[in-house]
Amino acid sequence: MPLNHANLEVTEVARQLRVDSIRAAAAAGSGHPTSSMSAADLMAVLLTRHLRYDFDRPEHPGNDRFILSKGHASPLLYAAYKAAGAIDDDELLSFRTLGGRLEGHPTPRRLPWVEVATGSLGQGLPVGVGMALSGQRLDRIPYRVWVLCGDSELAEGSVWEAAEHAGYEHLDNLTAVVDVNRLGQRGPTRHQWHLDEYARRLIAFGWHVVAVDGHDPDAIDRAFQEAESTVGQPTAILARTLKGRGVAAVEDREGMHGKPLPDAEEAVAELGGARDVHVHVQGPPAARVLHAVRSGHLELPRHEVGGSVATRTAYGQALTALGTARGDVVALDGEVGDSTRAEYFAKEHPDRFFECYIAEQQLVAAAVGLAARGWVPYASTFAAFLSRAHDFVRMAAVGGAGINLVGSHAGCAIGQDGPSQMGLEDLAMFRAVHGSTVLYPCDAHQTGRLVAAMADLEGVRYLRTSRGDMPVLYGPDEEFPVGGAKVLRSSDADRLTVVAAGVTVHEALAAAELLDREGIQVRVVDLYSVKPVDKRTLREAAARTGCLLTVEDHRPEGGLGDAVLDVFTDGTPVPRLVRLAVRTMPGSASPAEQLHAAGIDAESIAAAARLLTEQAVVR
Amino acid sequence: MPLNHANLEVTEVARQLRVDSIRAAAAAGSGHPTSSMSAADLMAVLLTRHLRYDFDRPEHPGNDRFILSKGHASPLLYAAYKAAGAIDDDELLSFRTLGGRLEGHPTPRRLPWVEVATGSLGQGLPVGVGMALSGQRLDRIPYRVWVLCGDSELAEGSVWEAAEHAGYEHLDNLTAVVDVNRLGQRGPTRHQWHLDEYARRLIAFGWHVVAVDGHDPDAIDRAFQEAESTVGQPTAILARTLKGRGVAAVEDREGMHGKPLPDAEEAVAELGGARDVHVHVQGPPAARVLHAVRSGHLELPRHEVGGSVATRTAYGQALTALGTARGDVVALDGEVGDSTRAEYFAKEHPDRFFECYIAEQQLVAAAVGLAARGWVPYASTFAAFLSRAHDFVRMAAVGGAGINLVGSHAGCAIGQDGPSQMGLEDLAMFRAVHGSTVLYPCDAHQTGRLVAAMADLEGVRYLRTSRGDMPVLYGPDEEFPVGGAKVLRSSDADRLTVVAAGVTVHEALAAAELLDREGIQVRVVDLYSVKPVDKRTLREAAARTGCLLTVEDHRPEGGLGDAVLDVFTDGTPVPRLVRLAVRTMPGSASPAEQLHAAGIDAESIAAAARLLTEQAVVR
Repeated sequence: MPLNHANLEVTEVARQLRVDSIRAAAAAGSGHPTSSMSAADLMAVLLTRHLRYDFDRPEHPGNDRFILSKGHASPLLYAAYKAAGAIDDDELLSFRTLGGRLEGHPTPRRLPWVEVATGSLGQGLPVGVGMALSGQRLDRIPYRVWVLCGDSELAEGSVWEAAEHAGYEHLDNLTAVVDVNRLGQRGPTRHQWHLDEYARRLIAFGWHVVAVDGHDPDAIDRAFQEAESTVGQPTAILARTLKGRGVAAVEDREGMHGKPLPDAEEAVAELGGARDVHVHVQGPPAARVLHAVRSGHLELPRHEVGGSVATRTAYGQALTALGTARGDVVALDGEVGDSTRAEYFAKEHPDRFFECYIAEQQLVAAAVGLAARGWVPYASTFAAFLSRAHDFVRMAAVGGAGINLVGSHAGCAIGQDGPSQMGLEDLAMFRAVHGSTVLYPCDAHQTGRLVAAMADLEGVRYLRTSRGDMPVLYGPDEEFPVGGAKVLRSSDADRLTVVAAGVTVHEALAAAELLDREGIQVRVVDLYSVKPVDKRTLREAAARTGCLLTVEDHRPEGGLGDAVLDVFTDGTPVPRLVRLAVRTMPGSASPAEQLHAAGIDAESIAAAARLLTEQAVVR
Repeated sequence: MPLNHANLEVTEVARQLRVDSIRAAAAAGSGHPTSSMSAADLMAVLLTRHLRYDFDRPEHPGNDRFILSKGHASPLLYAAYKAAGAIDDDELLSFRTLGGRLEGHPTPRRLPWVEVATGSLGQGLPVGVGMALSGQRLDRIPYRVWVLCGDSELAEGSVWEAAEHAGYEHLDNLTAVVDVNRLGQRGPTRHQWHLDEYARRLIAFGWHVVAVDGHDPDAIDRAFQEAESTVGQPTAILARTLKGRGVAAVEDREGMHGKPLPDAEEAVAELGGARDVHVHVQGPPAARVLHAVRSGHLELPRHEVGGSVATRTAYGQALTALGTARGDVVALDGEVGDSTRAEYFAKEHPDRFFECYIAEQQLVAAAVGLAARGWVPYASTFAAFLSRAHDFVRMAAVGGAGINLVGSHAGCAIGQDGPSQMGLEDLAMFRAVHGSTVLYPCDAHQTGRLVAAMADLEGVRYLRTSRGDMPVLYGPDEEFPVGGAKVLRSSDADRLTVVAAGVTVHEALAAAELLDREGIQVRVVDLYSVKPVDKRTLREAAARTGCLLTVEDHRPEGGLGDAVLDVFTDGTPVPRLVRLAVRTMPGSASPAEQLHAAGIDAESIAAAARLLTEQAVVR
């Protein structure tokens, strides 16, 4: 029998959620049952009376979205899945085991009902904002985004970036339910049960706030109704709860975070024993995705070969064209669209552009949320400032989110602005992200092709663009497969291969000219695909020329040089390798002065090449 | 003549600051004069009437601290230095030139009066909180920390982490002056001139707020007085200003961000021409640093060799001992002190422990602020969550800050909690930081030594600790120089060297035992110092054994393997090299299962070694 509208039944469901949370953690020998128990009544009311969700069709566009921002309370989530009939008791008890779907923290890579990977606190609400933006501005489907937050995580700045964004955009389809159980991991939170502290903050950020006893089903029910009927504002429900609620041995006690209950059997008995209540979760209303994925033929901008175009400009132009061809492409920017050139897209497709202001965590989180709703997001800011969102990028990979991130102002070549504005560690950051793609074009046509290719890749895709104008090297019809490289110059007399990308490609070509005049032939490889890397081309270059010289406008660690070295880590012989990279802390100087001071300009490349080819002769 | 207490004179100073900002940017051909002009009156009032600072003795403990959080307004700062007599006009006009001190964004590496490198927005206030905490709780010196913020940067979550921390800690020695000039980089800010929006938010976070006309010297003066006399709360002064104030061609106009004025000469004329007013900045009151740098002999904890201790536990114990020996050591943690073991320090030295709750940006920023005040901070959280503070770490390096960061729960070896909690990208992140030191111990005594050694290094120091217990390998008197490595096993018959660190050292030793029984001798190197790396030991191992096998509980990119490879990028012959690393996305599983699934356990190492030594024989 479906359970509905009777507190007795809600209470039964809540007890089952508690019992199952305890049982799952006991079976695993680890986990966070007490953090689950505090929110069990909130979850029971949501599941039985408010959530509209078809567990057989998680892809249903009309489904509400539920995000467990306090991802460590996964036992509660899995217990809810069991109550809803989505998983069985055997699976529940497989919690945290090798090969199982029920991980310590939930991820969409494993379970179709999980919207986003959580476990790093303060991320669920920002991603929920992305989904709510999609519902409000793009899908135009009246689903609600429910985010269950912990109280501890409200200390994260990312939560306030989200609060600001949601309040400002009047996201009344977004509800944050805060489980204020007073206790963090190592002890009391800052504000403990002072709900008024949280309320004041959220109200100031433009939210509607309801404070409730989080163990009173009627009060919770009314609060959820209030959230559903509030127009023009997101709603936060501040629920005063007890951590470990329902079991005296752990209820509201410190030192009980993140471990199974001391006596699970006794605890289950205290809660009236195991149950097998099934909840009939109401289905979503009929809904249809409106956007056309492909609405036309892609006409990438064409540039004059030999002309001069910044790759950031080429990015903005290509993205705009891509947006014209594809209705599913959306763009976001961190209040620097005039620099990243995302403003071109914003002008042409204002309905699909999201200004995120200077809040890079929210920028990336919104992209993750939009991607979860089927959109193909491109989020841009300065490469240096994407480091602000490193943890969101990491978690995007954990969840398998498909997002495009674009970092402009790469390297010391930006010039006078100095090191705070230079992306010098971005390649290292993005290469280490699991399953990522890292692209670094040196020319406008290459940029355009890569921008288009990124759209259909899996995982986190990163494009690194440059501030200054660069010569257009390639023709408009040249193709640039991801995972490829271009040999820009080669001969049978090559004694060295210079591997470059972005700005250093042009320096390498100039160096090759210099060296040619001295009778030294060098090969030049444009490694525009930094990850995956073109093993064949690099191996061949190594075999033919014996020595590789990598040159990058990036720190020596984790960038282009390491990408090249990685090719030779399979136990086969390694070529001689030298890398030029930015090893000092730049100050202010002109772009040319910067490249020279860092030792990555044509002159420096030529000098290194002379030395290496001399060595080769001597040996 | 010193100028004081007369609006006419303040106005003159303000005009000079505007004129000099315009002149500096004009000379450089780049920079942010309009962002400087909006704040010129605020700066003039501060400089002439409120700041207590001895420019001849920037190290004076009683000096007020001034942080230009909107670092792009550096022309204003340098103009103020000129007005105060700290630099001359020639130097002012060297703005943004190669080798000059006046960078596009100010940094303490170049100028003794700069407290912290800014230029990545939203960082000045969090670092200011660290300095104010020092003043309030450690130095006990009544200096005031003045932070000049932009309005755009209030969108950064880090600002709200700082607002929360400052409000909660009642930092009445902290004043944020917000230059609300309405215009960001690419257009209007979210809240434009709605000072009430900012006021509501800050008041909710526990701040005292004063709204003023930012071009009215009297009003500004009264606001600063109010900040100085407010007890128990930090004060925010919300100043309504005009970007480009004073020059009609740019005043309050969009599209004028980050570029010199179109006609600098005309603008200077409009402001009444160049001046050379000198301000006598009042000096600080007498003050004395109270803390004793060394108060005793360091007695590191001793463990039983062969016993079992987690390196995170060893960290907590060693840090506590170090805190006993040194009065300048302070600790901070992100509400996970029971996991990182920072709680040991907190218990023993509560006066020098700072709980930062789950706000990793503020955690690192507070460390930077404390370091700027002469303390030796150790800030800890899970390694995975330090990614949250990547941009702060990057900027700490730009500014040359000396901080110790400690990331616990390294790698997949944490087990059941799953990938969201695993530090798998941290080595890549920290290695790419300029001038950083990266340490990764495998044993309790090693941990203790490294914790002590970190204290006296330069720059960003990172220590990676592990969750699980590990055998105590080394004796208590063994030394572990930074930049060294330990050869744990070697013979003349070695046919391969396994290079490991942390948990994989123990796996490598077990593998060596397995292989020994099969008649295969391998060398084992414990590479506890990942950066700098022990070139000599690695070169010798390569020369003797011909092949290196690196094994790390980290992504293949940017970690241990790359650190080893880096040794061989000087153009000399490279040994054969294979790396084992975490190439999949882990789920939940036991620590042993995780290491096996990732292919970095003893069995996997032995299998790889067999294959490689076989190859060696065949070749």
